[in-house]
Amino acid sequence: MEVDEVVCLPRLSRVAVCGGTHGNELSGVYLVRELLKARKEAMKKKEEEEEEEEPASVLMVLSNPRATQQCRRYVDTDLNRCFTHATLSGPVSDMAPYEMIRARELNTLLGPKGSAEAVDLVCDLHNTTANMGLCLIAYSDCDWICLHIFRHLQRQMPDVPMRFIHFDVSRKESYSLDSVGKHGFAMEIGPQPHGVVRSNIYTAMKDGVQHMLDWVRSFNSGTTFEGGLVDVFTMVKHIDYPRDGQTHDITAAIHPELQDRDFCLLHPEDALFQTFSGETLRYKGLEPLFPFFVNECAYYEKGIALSLARKRHVMIPAVRVQTEAEQQTAEQGFASEEE
Amino acid sequence: MEVDEVVCLPRLSRVAVCGGTHGNELSGVYLVRELLKARKEAMKKKEEEEEEEEPASVLMVLSNPRATQQCRRYVDTDLNRCFTHATLSGPVSDMAPYEMIRARELNTLLGPKGSAEAVDLVCDLHNTTANMGLCLIAYSDCDWICLHIFRHLQRQMPDVPMRFIHFDVSRKESYSLDSVGKHGFAMEIGPQPHGVVRSNIYTAMKDGVQHMLDWVRSFNSGTTFEGGLVDVFTMVKHIDYPRDGQTHDITAAIHPELQDRDFCLLHPEDALFQTFSGETLRYKGLEPLFPFFVNECAYYEKGIALSLARKRHVMIPAVRVQTEAEQQTAEQGFASEEE
Repeated sequence: MEVDEVVCLPRLSRVAVCGGTHGNELSGVYLVRELLKARKEAMKKKEEEEEEEEPASVLMVLSNPRATQQCRRYVDTDLNRCFTHATLSGPVSDMAPYEMIRARELNTLLGPKGSAEAVDLVCDLHNTTANMGLCLIAYSDCDWICLHIFRHLQRQMPDVPMRFIHFDVSRKESYSLDSVGKHGFAMEIGPQPHGVVRSNIYTAMKDGVQHMLDWVRSFNSGTTFEGGLVDVFTMVKHIDYPRDGQTHDITAAIHPELQDRDFCLLHPEDALFQTFSGETLRYKGLEPLFPFFVNECAYYEKGIALSLARKRHVMIPAVRVQTEAEQQTAEQGFASEEE
Repeated sequence: MEVDEVVCLPRLSRVAVCGGTHGNELSGVYLVRELLKARKEAMKKKEEEEEEEEPASVLMVLSNPRATQQCRRYVDTDLNRCFTHATLSGPVSDMAPYEMIRARELNTLLGPKGSAEAVDLVCDLHNTTANMGLCLIAYSDCDWICLHIFRHLQRQMPDVPMRFIHFDVSRKESYSLDSVGKHGFAMEIGPQPHGVVRSNIYTAMKDGVQHMLDWVRSFNSGTTFEGGLVDVFTMVKHIDYPRDGQTHDITAAIHPELQDRDFCLLHPEDALFQTFSGETLRYKGLEPLFPFFVNECAYYEKGIALSLARKRHVMIPAVRVQTEAEQQTAEQGFASEEE
C-alpha cells in the first residue's frame, strides 16, 4: 500500500451507540438515556421547524435492560461473550440464560452479524475499574474506519490518555456486541467503580461519542482523512492472581507498584503481586510488555488479574467515502462474488 | 471532668474483628481470612512450644458468608441495618431474609446486644468507594475507648488521612453490627471499588487492626493513656441525587469539583452536582459543612449522594484499665443496680 493512496470505503449510513451491555457500567447507561432524551426533545422541536436530513442514522440501544435495572454486570451470563457465531446460531430454548436470548434480539436489531444488513458501525460503551483512560478495543488492527476514528478522538481530546487495543481473535470467534456491526469497537473508560458514575468519566465518554459521530458525518459528506502512524496495543496474554490450591481464593493483590500503572511497560522482575501476608511476587516473563486491565473488578471471576500487550506502529492509509458510482461498482462486485 | 483525672474502665477481655459484613467489601474479607490462617499456623507452632496467655481473646468473624461467596453487598437485605433492638427481638420465620437470620446468629455469638455477656469491643471492617481515607464510625462521641483507639491509630499511621465520624443515634436504634459490642466501631477505608482489593487499602486496614489490638493489649496490661483533644465529625444530614420525578432515575452525578473531596469544607453555593446534560447545581445550605461518603456506590439505592458533618473538638480524659479490686467494686455496684 502506498502511503499517499486514498482508500475508498463504503458510506457509514447506520451507526449504533450501545450502553448498559454490562448493567453496572453506568457511564454508558446514563449517556444513552441522555442521548435518547435529547433526541426526543430535538424531534419535538423539529416537527415545528422544517425537516433536516441526518448524514447518518444513529441507533441508541440499552443492551441489557434487566441487568441495568438490577445494577449488575449480568443476570445469568455475561452478555458481552454471547455474540460468537456458535452462540448466535445454536439451538435455544425458553430455559436459556436471559443474556443468550437478549443477544439474539440484539443480533436481529443490529445484525445479523456478518451479513450485508448489519449496521455499519457499533460503538459499545464500557467502564473499567482499571486506570486505562479511554481505550478503543477492536478485533482488527487494519480496520481503517476504527483506526481513523481513534486518531480523530486522540486529536480532539488531547487531555484524555487514549489507546487502541487489538484482540487478535477471528471474526467467527469474536464474542462481543461490537462484533455484530460491519465495523465496531468497545469504548472502554476508567477508572470508575462499577455501580458508580463519576462526572469526569461520563464527560469523557460523552465527548468521545460526540467526536466519533462528528467524524462519521464528516466522512459521509466526503472529507478525505490523511494517513499516518497509529500505536496499536495487541493483547498477548492474561495473568491470573495467585490462588489457594484448595479453595481457589486469591492469595495476593496487584502490587502497589503496578496498581494504576496501566500501559507503563512491565519489565522482567518488576513487582507484580503483593500476597496478603506481605510478600512481593515478581513478573517472570522474558519480554517487557504493556499491562492493561490491571485489577479490573469483573475479571476476578474470569481469572484475569491483568492483561499484557505488545505495542506496534501501524501505518493507516488516507481514507474517504466511496462516491455513489464507486459504491455501485463495489456492490456489483460483491453480488457477483456471492453468486 | 478534670483533664488530669484518670478514668478507670473495665478490661477489654474479648474483642471481635469482623470482615465481610458487606460481601463485596474485600479488604475485610481477605484480612480476616489471613488473620485466621496466621492464627492457625501460630497455634500449630505453639503446641510445640510452651503455652502463652493472650492479653485479650480476639474473635475473628466472617459476618456474611453467603454474600461474600457471591461477592455482593448482601443476598436479601443489608445485614448492617439488621441490628436494631426491634429487628433482633421481633418474630422471625424460616421465610425471613437470610441476613435477618444471620444477624441473630451474630447477636448470639457476639452479644446479646446490650447485655453483660456481649464482647467488649467490636471492630467491623468496611470499604467505601468514597475518598475517605481511614474512618472510625461510632454511635457515641464520648466512648473513651473508641476515641483513644482512634488517637492511637492517628499517631501510629501518620501517612493515612484519618477521621472519627459520629452518628448521633440512640443505642436502641443503632443498626449496625458494631453496636452489638459493649464498645464498637466500623473501620471504613477507601477509596476502593467494591469487588476489588487494592494493596494499599488492604495494608492500611491490616495496620489499623494491628495497632488497635496493640492498644487493647497495652490498655489491658495497665498502661495509662493521656487525655487530649480529638476532632469528631458528627453527621448532620444526607443529600440525595437529583432524580427524575417519574422514573426516580438519577439525573446528575457528583460535581467534579466535589468528587474525591471528602472532608473538605463545602460552602453555600459551592458546586454539588453536574447534570447529565452538563448543568451545575449548587449547595443551597446556609451552613458550611464537611462532606463525606461522597459518591459511595452502595448508597445510590439508599438515596444518599453524600453526607454532611459538623466538626467539633472533643476533650477526652486520660484512661487506664480498672484494677481487679476496682472491677469487683464496679461489678457489685452493677449487680445491686440490677436488683
